[in-house]
Amino acid sequence: MIFASDNWSGAHPAVNAALARHGEGMAEAYGASDLDKKVEARFNDIFEREVAVFFVGTGTAANSLALASVKRPGGVVLCHREAHILEDECGAPEFFTHGARMAAVDGPNGLIDPQNLLHELARFKPGRVHAGQPMAISISQPSEAGTVYSTDAIERFAAIAHDRGLTLHMDGARFANALVATGLTPAEMTWKRGVDILSFGATKNGCWCAEAIVVFDPAKAEQFPYIRKRGAQLFSKTRFVAAQFMAYFDGGLWLDLAGHANRMADQLRQALAESNAAREAWETNCNEIFAVLPSDLAARMREAGAVFYDWNKPHAMPDLVGEGETLVRLVTSWSNSDDDVAQFASFLR
Amino acid sequence: MIFASDNWSGAHPAVNAALARHGEGMAEAYGASDLDKKVEARFNDIFEREVAVFFVGTGTAANSLALASVKRPGGVVLCHREAHILEDECGAPEFFTHGARMAAVDGPNGLIDPQNLLHELARFKPGRVHAGQPMAISISQPSEAGTVYSTDAIERFAAIAHDRGLTLHMDGARFANALVATGLTPAEMTWKRGVDILSFGATKNGCWCAEAIVVFDPAKAEQFPYIRKRGAQLFSKTRFVAAQFMAYFDGGLWLDLAGHANRMADQLRQALAESNAAREAWETNCNEIFAVLPSDLAARMREAGAVFYDWNKPHAMPDLVGEGETLVRLVTSWSNSDDDVAQFASFLR
Amino acid sequence: MIFASDNWSGAHPAVNAALARHGEGMAEAYGASDLDKKVEARFNDIFEREVAVFFVGTGTAANSLALASVKRPGGVVLCHREAHILEDECGAPEFFTHGARMAAVDGPNGLIDPQNLLHELARFKPGRVHAGQPMAISISQPSEAGTVYSTDAIERFAAIAHDRGLTLHMDGARFANALVATGLTPAEMTWKRGVDILSFGATKNGCWCAEAIVVFDPAKAEQFPYIRKRGAQLFSKTRFVAAQFMAYFDGGLWLDLAGHANRMADQLRQALAESNAAREAWETNCNEIFAVLPSDLAARMREAGAVFYDWNKPHAMPDLVGEGETLVRLVTSWSNSDDDVAQFASFLR
Amino acid sequence: MIFASDNWSGAHPAVNAALARHGEGMAEAYGASDLDKKVEARFNDIFEREVAVFFVGTGTAANSLALASVKRPGGVVLCHREAHILEDECGAPEFFTHGARMAAVDGPNGLIDPQNLLHELARFKPGRVHAGQPMAISISQPSEAGTVYSTDAIERFAAIAHDRGLTLHMDGARFANALVATGLTPAEMTWKRGVDILSFGATKNGCWCAEAIVVFDPAKAEQFPYIRKRGAQLFSKTRFVAAQFMAYFDGGLWLDLAGHANRMADQLRQALAESNAAREAWETNCNEIFAVLPSDLAARMREAGAVFYDWNKPHAMPDLVGEGETLVRLVTSWSNSDDDVAQFASFLR
Repeated sequence: MIFASDNWSGAHPAVNAALARHGEGMAEAYGASDLDKKVEARFNDIFEREVAVFFVGTGTAANSLALASVKRPGGVVLCHREAHILEDECGAPEFFTHGARMAAVDGPNGLIDPQNLLHELARFKPGRVHAGQPMAISISQPSEAGTVYSTDAIERFAAIAHDRGLTLHMDGARFANALVATGLTPAEMTWKRGVDILSFGATKNGCWCAEAIVVFDPAKAEQFPYIRKRGAQLFSKTRFVAAQFMAYFDGGLWLDLAGHANRMADQLRQALAESNAAREAWETNCNEIFAVLPSDLAARMREAGAVFYDWNKPHAMPDLVGEGETLVRLVTSWSNSDDDVAQFASFLR
Repeated sequence: MIFASDNWSGAHPAVNAALARHGEGMAEAYGASDLDKKVEARFNDIFEREVAVFFVGTGTAANSLALASVKRPGGVVLCHREAHILEDECGAPEFFTHGARMAAVDGPNGLIDPQNLLHELARFKPGRVHAGQPMAISISQPSEAGTVYSTDAIERFAAIAHDRGLTLHMDGARFANALVATGLTPAEMTWKRGVDILSFGATKNGCWCAEAIVVFDPAKAEQFPYIRKRGAQLFSKTRFVAAQFMAYFDGGLWLDLAGHANRMADQLRQALAESNAAREAWETNCNEIFAVLPSDLAARMREAGAVFYDWNKPHAMPDLVGEGETLVRLVTSWSNSDDDVAQFASFLR
Repeated sequence: MIFASDNWSGAHPAVNAALARHGEGMAEAYGASDLDKKVEARFNDIFEREVAVFFVGTGTAANSLALASVKRPGGVVLCHREAHILEDECGAPEFFTHGARMAAVDGPNGLIDPQNLLHELARFKPGRVHAGQPMAISISQPSEAGTVYSTDAIERFAAIAHDRGLTLHMDGARFANALVATGLTPAEMTWKRGVDILSFGATKNGCWCAEAIVVFDPAKAEQFPYIRKRGAQLFSKTRFVAAQFMAYFDGGLWLDLAGHANRMADQLRQALAESNAAREAWETNCNEIFAVLPSDLAARMREAGAVFYDWNKPHAMPDLVGEGETLVRLVTSWSNSDDDVAQFASFLR
Repeated sequence: MIFASDNWSGAHPAVNAALARHGEGMAEAYGASDLDKKVEARFNDIFEREVAVFFVGTGTAANSLALASVKRPGGVVLCHREAHILEDECGAPEFFTHGARMAAVDGPNGLIDPQNLLHELARFKPGRVHAGQPMAISISQPSEAGTVYSTDAIERFAAIAHDRGLTLHMDGARFANALVATGLTPAEMTWKRGVDILSFGATKNGCWCAEAIVVFDPAKAEQFPYIRKRGAQLFSKTRFVAAQFMAYFDGGLWLDLAGHANRMADQLRQALAESNAAREAWETNCNEIFAVLPSDLAARMREAGAVFYDWNKPHAMPDLVGEGETLVRLVTSWSNSDDDVAQFASFLR
């Protein structure tokens, strides 16, 4: 009954097997090994075009270096008010961009409202240095609220960004879960809709530590090797990341694992729908669920071994939680079992 | 015959086995798992005192965050002119410290000369803001030139540092090799001689990606968790680092592996001593050797499959290399074999 | 009829006379001259205690270095959503603090609402690194909306700040105007109510370029000289700032000039109150007025030579401005005349 | 007998008169006033081409922002080992460039030796991220040692820089003194010889606080307004800088003042040449002199009211100063008189 976070899971046996297999012998360091190159080619296949791909160690690094690569002096990144880059990365994006501002844009269910975005952008007059200058729009797919943007929405953000010379960045810490939830191809969810840079996460979905920054126009990544090294994110034995990705992609393991996690979430959603005691706080699409539980029930479940986190109320939903109630987040992963879910569901009845 | 770098080696089977073993099931993320705590306790045992230990992903991260944790505005770090933090980290130490200066101090064989150090320090007058202010002395053990400081030398640097309110940092990317070479205990080589912070490397010596910052006075590490997270170095599934360290320490594997690497280097040194064609550039003590080879011999060896890097001449030794000669670095690792060395030696004869 | 900004005014003749007088002869550079020391003593008198005072060249520098001096890794500064440090300094506070986040807190009329502040602070759990850590509360007195905090409000913010180990910073770009409007002494408006650091502005009120950072507990300013020099804000001929301050304080010039500006604003307020065509957007207290004008009237006034800026609507007041209306800001200064105001008022009738 | 620094002088009466004259009335802030534009045009005249010019408050700001505008991740600036940007700006260049390294190049008399420069540059292999990447060569004209580069030397540095895609920056804190000493035009000493960016100082030579960054290819300055504002160097009442420059240039005042300072230095040089007790440490060309004095004579002169600073020995001249001797720096300025010099000279006899 552990629904604390998908990063509480370990690594899939196939990932560990790959590490063992590729651990032998000598290979070029710093990204130049055959395995590194094979995995880079794999990314090209997956995205149906030539991309520039850079491995890093954490999702925070992926987001921060991606933004650092498009930074401007006095730069401003427009993102959702509850975006991970704004609320959950201890200022790393600001740090790596040398003080770019993460500007909060409101919108329901963790999704940026395009009207609000335009309203915020209108506050910046061309050439007026005092306000700084927008540099990027960053969306999370799925969002921190467990919801997904439609391809139309992504296209709309891309148009808004590109009309103004801004970069469209996608935080894909749970990219595979969004793919499975929407049925889209990686290309359809990103560059075909105008995404310029993607933080591609694999850690939460069965790897130990495998994150990548995907730059869809490789010509724009010329300085990235220096940005990554200066940011202390160039691993020496990069094949250890490459090996994880290899196992992750082989035979579609990544989509299988994400599919499992999403199904586990579906079962939890079902249990909440049937519960008189608890309810979903808002509709979600992937492997995160936000539930309003009676506080005493939450306490009892925790005593019985359930693990989940209390969650901050979204700014936009001040009346979401009544007295004696608690907002919690439930995250499922590739390593949750039907039993986990069934046990949890039994408490909700 | 691969002596390019110890980071061309992979991971020891025991490390991979630990990863497989600890990959199962759920565990708290972000450093709070039982395994994380066990490894932290292990560091206490190894250093014979309570220490604060922080896992990070690269040696560059270890050095950069260690220095960031003691930074001062206008800060200056005194280090050897060929120090890794100065010449080989793409400005990461400057970046993470927000512009501290790595000030070069000369000295023979990669070792800071204490007189030169005092001379450099004398350029800073108390309260004269223009010059900035010293904040740390950083030594590498072993040094980038493959040599080691005596405990007397370390004590001397500690006295110089502490008299002026400075931190003494040790870059221990090849810490185990230095231990084996000197026969010292970890405590004797560090805090008992006045070292305040250690970059403790395990990656080069049999792990995939396992570096730690060891702060000998835990009270001084209060802000470190924020520094690490902001620096994008807090892994979510930290047990993957912890598992590597566990295997690394178990049964003294780390010292065995370093011992093997050092012995391989001894054999190479022997071969150079017996060679008419080549010579050691200077005496080294651990698993790095610097050799002056006839350029045509170097070319022939490379054709035959030997891998090693040309090396920049030390600033202090302008006449080291004659015409038709090449300075190269040879690094041995836990995964080099007697055969590797024998084959290499046969070329030198 | 120029009400664009108080920084469109020049320098008061007394200031220029002081510059001419003190321009002769040699004097120690970098803040060590007799005149520098005299002015520092003057600050002690004005604030009725020993303070540490540092001259800088711009208000942005004052705010940015003040916050830099109390920064923490992953630091967060809580300020009003329309605060100058957040919206009008091109990211300088983020830059000088190495990426501290300026976190927007809402509240009516440019004033932070204490409940909202507490709500924001509650999002930070002790020791949870992901969210970063609060480091300061910053209030503007007067606020960017031309309003002032009561001493009770300041005390409340100080209590909230100090309970959590945070610094209370006051942006006093128009400090003299606030003093005159409230009738408080400098001490009463600051440290007696718990303010820790003040950005003390004189530029807008009759100087050329004279800003100071006042640290009320000098023991906390130990590193400030280095922060200022590294920030490129240590002038060599500091007596040019000192001379301006000397003239500014002599005979109470500063309060006279601010009083004049505030009276000019009172007359404008009166004219708006009597107008059928225009209205004050909200009540203000010092030398800034926000008015809703019919857009065609605003255009006609500009044709006739009036100068004032359109203003972004406050986030909290989406319905402030009707169709065919424009929100404008009017700022009066020591160099506006009764005629300026009368001419402007004639348009409003 | 004050030869401490040219920044101990005040402001020339013509500068103060201009401030008084331009202090009246309203004018657009932030660089948009008529006077600002007039001065910008004046810079075009002086340099015989269209340039982009940006006022800042300190020489440190000029150097730091100039370098910030051409920064690269992991960037390295090659400069003389005793360069002001390396030794005397408290890390501001590193800070504003986010950690670029100021790499010391040796050479006699404060002048970079081109061979040493090439040797340093050769340490950077294309694409090898570890070492970082050169971004600029910075020369001081005159140098910190009071010497000047020939136009041939400047051309040579420009060729070296441009062949490698680097920027050539000139620190002209005492630019006028170098012009007078060499008899060159501003254009001949800069862009006609390949200089890309100039820190143009006027403060030391008769102004209060007037420094400018001159970018010879205005197309490369597009982001500079944001860099300056984010760096807290955009003054609101910019006409106060413009007025100083106006007076500085009018009637060639700047060259007259620099000529006076240089002549004063010539007289000191003469006195040293005739002295049995003291000697010039090395030959200089402008308004700085470095002298070796018997320590007891230096003490006596100070007792008699002479003011000058002890100076750090150049790294390259370890044997410059004998026992019982002191190396001192003497700087003359527009406000030193014949009497000052005569009095000083009398001590040397």
